[in-house]
Amino acid sequence: MRARVYVSLKKSVLDPQGKTIHHSLQNIGFRKITEVRQGKFFEIDFASELTREEVRAEVEKIAEDVLTNPVIEEFSYQIE
Amino acid sequence: MRARVYVSLKKSVLDPQGKTIHHSLQNIGFRKITEVRQGKFFEIDFASELTREEVRAEVEKIAEDVLTNPVIEEFSYQIE
Repeated sequence: MRARVYVSLKKSVLDPQGKTIHHSLQNIGFRKITEVRQGKFFEIDFASELTREEVRAEVEKIAEDVLTNPVIEEFSYQIE
Repeated sequence: MRARVYVSLKKSVLDPQGKTIHHSLQNIGFRKITEVRQGKFFEIDFASELTREEVRAEVEKIAEDVLTNPVIEEFSYQIE
Protein backbone atom coordinates (compact mmCIF):
# COMPACT_ATOMS: atom_id res chain seq x y z
CA MET A 1 0.00 0.00 0.00
CA ARG A 2 1.26 3.48 -0.85
CA ALA A 3 0.80 6.66 1.16
CA ARG A 4 1.60 10.15 -0.05
CA VAL A 5 2.41 12.75 2.61
CA TYR A 6 2.37 16.45 1.66
CA VAL A 7 4.30 18.82 3.92
CA SER A 8 4.02 22.57 3.47
CA LEU A 9 4.69 25.71 5.40
CA LYS A 10 1.74 26.97 7.44
CA LYS A 11 -0.15 29.74 5.67
CA SER A 12 1.00 32.17 8.38
CA VAL A 13 4.67 31.49 7.58
CA LEU A 14 6.42 33.47 4.84
CA ASP A 15 7.50 31.25 1.93
CA PRO A 16 10.63 32.88 0.45
CA GLN A 17 11.17 30.04 -2.04
CA GLY A 18 7.62 30.39 -3.31
CA LYS A 19 8.06 34.17 -3.60
CA THR A 20 11.33 33.75 -5.53
CA ILE A 21 9.71 31.35 -7.99
CA HIS A 22 6.72 33.69 -8.35
CA HIS A 23 9.04 36.61 -9.08
CA SER A 24 11.05 34.59 -11.65
CA LEU A 25 7.91 33.44 -13.42
CA GLN A 26 6.71 37.04 -13.70
CA ASN A 27 10.09 38.04 -15.15
CA ILE A 28 9.75 35.51 -17.95
CA GLY A 29 6.23 36.56 -18.81
CA PHE A 30 3.84 34.56 -16.61
CA ARG A 31 1.91 37.60 -15.32
CA LYS A 32 -1.40 35.95 -14.39
CA ILE A 33 -0.06 34.23 -11.27
CA THR A 34 -1.16 35.62 -7.89
CA GLU A 35 0.83 33.35 -5.58
CA VAL A 36 3.26 30.39 -5.55
CA ARG A 37 3.94 28.21 -2.51
CA GLN A 38 6.37 25.29 -2.39
CA GLY A 39 6.23 22.10 -0.30
CA LYS A 40 7.60 18.56 -0.11
CA PHE A 41 5.89 15.26 -0.61
CA PHE A 42 6.89 11.75 0.37
CA GLU A 43 5.78 8.50 -1.25
CA ILE A 44 5.93 5.77 1.37
CA ASP A 45 5.37 2.16 0.31
CA PHE A 46 4.21 -0.18 3.07
CA ALA A 47 4.47 -3.97 3.20
CA SER A 48 1.31 -5.57 1.81
CA GLU A 49 0.30 -7.35 5.02
CA LEU A 50 -0.62 -4.09 6.77
CA THR A 51 -4.30 -3.14 6.89
CA ARG A 52 -5.44 0.29 5.72
CA GLU A 53 -6.02 1.31 9.35
CA GLU A 54 -2.50 0.21 10.34
CA VAL A 55 -1.04 2.19 7.43
CA ARG A 56 -3.08 5.26 8.46
CA ALA A 57 -1.77 5.05 12.04
CA GLU A 58 1.86 4.65 10.88
CA VAL A 59 1.60 7.50 8.36
CA GLU A 60 0.21 9.93 10.94
CA LYS A 61 2.93 9.03 13.42
CA ILE A 62 5.69 9.30 10.77
CA ALA A 63 4.34 12.62 9.49
CA GLU A 64 4.06 14.12 12.99
CA ASP A 65 7.29 12.76 14.46
CA VAL A 66 9.69 12.72 11.50
CA LEU A 67 8.55 14.52 8.35
CA THR A 68 7.09 17.73 9.77
CA ASN A 69 8.35 20.58 11.91
CA PRO A 70 5.09 21.29 13.81
CA VAL A 71 6.10 24.87 14.60
CA ILE A 72 6.13 26.03 10.98
CA GLU A 73 4.77 23.16 8.91
CA GLU A 74 1.51 21.29 8.39
CA PHE A 75 0.82 18.05 6.56
CA SER A 76 -1.90 16.18 4.71
CA TYR A 77 -1.83 12.69 3.30
CA GLN A 78 -3.52 10.26 0.93
CA ILE A 79 -3.50 6.47 1.03
CA GLU A 80 -3.73 4.86 -2.38
CA MET B 1 -7.85 28.88 -9.94
CA ARG B 2 -5.21 26.76 -8.19
CA ALA B 3 -2.87 24.24 -9.79
CA ARG B 4 -0.69 21.79 -7.89
CA VAL B 5 2.46 20.58 -9.65
CA TYR B 6 4.27 17.49 -8.29
CA VAL B 7 7.92 17.09 -9.26
CA SER B 8 9.79 13.89 -8.45
CA LEU B 9 12.90 12.07 -9.53
CA LYS B 10 12.36 9.60 -12.37
CA LYS B 11 11.99 6.01 -11.12
CA SER B 12 15.32 5.17 -12.82
CA VAL B 13 17.17 7.79 -10.74
CA LEU B 14 18.53 6.89 -7.29
CA ASP B 15 16.81 8.88 -4.52
CA PRO B 16 19.41 9.26 -1.72
CA GLN B 17 17.13 11.49 0.36
CA GLY B 18 14.35 8.92 0.19
CA LYS B 19 16.79 6.16 1.14
CA THR B 20 18.08 8.17 4.11
CA ILE B 21 14.56 8.78 5.39
CA HIS B 22 13.71 5.10 4.88
CA HIS B 23 16.80 4.07 6.84
CA SER B 24 16.01 6.52 9.69
CA LEU B 25 12.42 5.32 9.91
CA GLN B 26 13.62 1.74 10.20
CA ASN B 27 16.04 2.74 12.98
CA ILE B 28 13.20 4.17 15.04
CA GLY B 29 11.02 1.12 14.60
CA PHE B 30 9.00 1.56 11.40
CA ARG B 31 9.97 -1.81 9.89
CA LYS B 32 7.02 -2.34 7.53
CA ILE B 33 8.14 0.23 4.97
CA THR B 34 9.51 -1.07 1.67
CA GLU B 35 10.47 2.24 0.01
CA VAL B 36 10.41 6.01 0.54
CA ARG B 37 10.76 8.56 -2.28
CA GLN B 38 10.78 12.34 -1.82
CA GLY B 39 9.58 15.06 -4.23
CA LYS B 40 8.52 18.71 -4.34
CA PHE B 41 5.15 20.23 -5.02
CA PHE B 42 4.15 23.74 -6.00
CA GLU B 43 0.80 25.42 -5.39
CA ILE B 44 0.29 28.04 -8.09
CA ASP B 45 -2.67 30.41 -7.84
CA PHE B 46 -3.81 31.94 -11.12
CA ALA B 47 -5.84 35.12 -11.65
CA SER B 48 -9.55 34.32 -11.84
CA GLU B 49 -10.08 35.58 -15.40
CA LEU B 50 -8.10 32.69 -16.92
CA THR B 51 -10.05 29.75 -18.34
CA ARG B 52 -9.25 26.19 -17.26
CA GLU B 53 -7.64 25.55 -20.65
CA GLU B 54 -5.45 28.66 -20.32
CA VAL B 55 -4.37 27.56 -16.83
CA ARG B 56 -3.58 24.07 -18.15
CA ALA B 57 -1.38 25.50 -20.92
CA GLU B 58 0.47 27.82 -18.51
CA VAL B 59 0.99 25.05 -15.91
CA GLU B 60 2.47 22.66 -18.48
CA LYS B 61 4.83 25.32 -19.80
CA ILE B 62 5.89 26.39 -16.26
CA ALA B 63 6.42 22.79 -15.18
CA GLU B 64 8.48 21.91 -18.27
CA ASP B 65 10.52 25.12 -18.53
CA VAL B 66 11.02 26.17 -14.91
CA LEU B 67 10.07 23.63 -12.23
CA THR B 68 11.50 20.41 -13.66
CA ASN B 69 14.93 19.21 -14.73
CA PRO B 70 13.79 16.97 -17.63
CA VAL B 71 16.95 14.85 -17.47
CA ILE B 72 16.27 13.44 -14.01
CA GLU B 73 12.79 14.62 -13.03
CA GLU B 74 9.19 14.09 -14.09
CA PHE B 75 6.05 15.99 -13.14
CA SER B 76 2.32 15.60 -12.78
CA TYR B 77 -0.28 18.21 -11.94
CA GLN B 78 -3.82 18.79 -10.78
CA ILE B 79 -6.04 21.83 -11.38
CA GLU B 80 -8.50 22.48 -8.55
